[in-house]
Amino acid sequence: MGEQANAGEMAEETPSQRVRDILDTGARLFAEKGYDATSMRDISNAAGVSKALLYHHFSSKDDIYARIAFSATQHLNAFVNARIPADGTAAEKLRAFMVSAAKFFSEHRSAWIAASNAFWSDPDQRLANLRIARRRQFENSLRDIIREGVASGEFNDIDPASAGRLILSGINWMHRWYDPDKELSAEEIADQYADILLSGIAKKQK
Amino acid sequence: MGEQANAGEMAEETPSQRVRDILDTGARLFAEKGYDATSMRDISNAAGVSKALLYHHFSSKDDIYARIAFSATQHLNAFVNARIPADGTAAEKLRAFMVSAAKFFSEHRSAWIAASNAFWSDPDQRLANLRIARRRQFENSLRDIIREGVASGEFNDIDPASAGRLILSGINWMHRWYDPDKELSAEEIADQYADILLSGIAKKQK
Repeated sequence: MGEQANAGEMAEETPSQRVRDILDTGARLFAEKGYDATSMRDISNAAGVSKALLYHHFSSKDDIYARIAFSATQHLNAFVNARIPADGTAAEKLRAFMVSAAKFFSEHRSAWIAASNAFWSDPDQRLANLRIARRRQFENSLRDIIREGVASGEFNDIDPASAGRLILSGINWMHRWYDPDKELSAEEIADQYADILLSGIAKKQK
Repeated sequence: MGEQANAGEMAEETPSQRVRDILDTGARLFAEKGYDATSMRDISNAAGVSKALLYHHFSSKDDIYARIAFSATQHLNAFVNARIPADGTAAEKLRAFMVSAAKFFSEHRSAWIAASNAFWSDPDQRLANLRIARRRQFENSLRDIIREGVASGEFNDIDPASAGRLILSGINWMHRWYDPDKELSAEEIADQYADILLSGIAKKQK
């Protein structure tokens, strides 16, 4: 590495506690009120910092938004990979992937909603590219599990890309309807989805 | 019915061709540029109408947005129900539901993206409520098909609500990644999803 850190390294800098507090507050407000209805003043008030200090750390509301969207995926891959049993069956790995991804997203619910909404108009292209690269890595881990199951004959001969998209759709769409105050946890919902996806809806032919 | 039409009737008024053109233009711009980056001037320019005329039909950008989000679901239920074979098996009905929903969404792709993005901050509560009622009706049709398959023993004993959510997640999330210029059509993708969901990922035990 030369004098200039690459974008990946720069982005992995650990933010200060104050910056993290501001990002958490911003994520909560964006998720509750929507991006448009949230002002820099709202964020400074809710975070208990002056507008001057807020602008010291962030150039604009777009900047805060991009950082939240980025941070939402920062630890996703490490979190999920650590929970996949290395010597499990492909079905066990697939279920662990789904349940841990749901757990991660529900634990970062505000950032998850904000990031999902930033999808079409992420204002910071550099952070957006890093975020997209991580999501691709995440999706590839899932395809690898499916490929492994197909190769060993444990799974039906399905297309890993198509099955992977269907599985991630279930996880990704949860932010639209999942209510943490309701009966089932995000992990339990993902576990139910895994049952349905693995066994199928149609009864097996005798 | 009294003198006052109810909200449902009012909303079903047929818009003029000019209004529909403006809504189509707005949907395309919102989908391409994002809601924030699209101005009333952009819409009037792209639609080839004066700003005065635009404001004659719509009070604000929010108003246009709400109408697009609303129109995206207006004919969904009729479209899908007309394509479900009344005397088919539950599996055939389920597949027809998925394929026709994907077809509907891909044919209204701009409005579909705009409506999906309006989810958290729909500015018009009356239209939003109608839209939500329609989506609920749509989801209930799907649950009925699943319930029918479970009752007849054609399907495994799955929870219709949970399976319905998983199926709709696959359809709904398509707006994020589906590219009409790529090889597979939206209907073909939904058909692949139906294969995976009906047969399951794990190979049947011999």
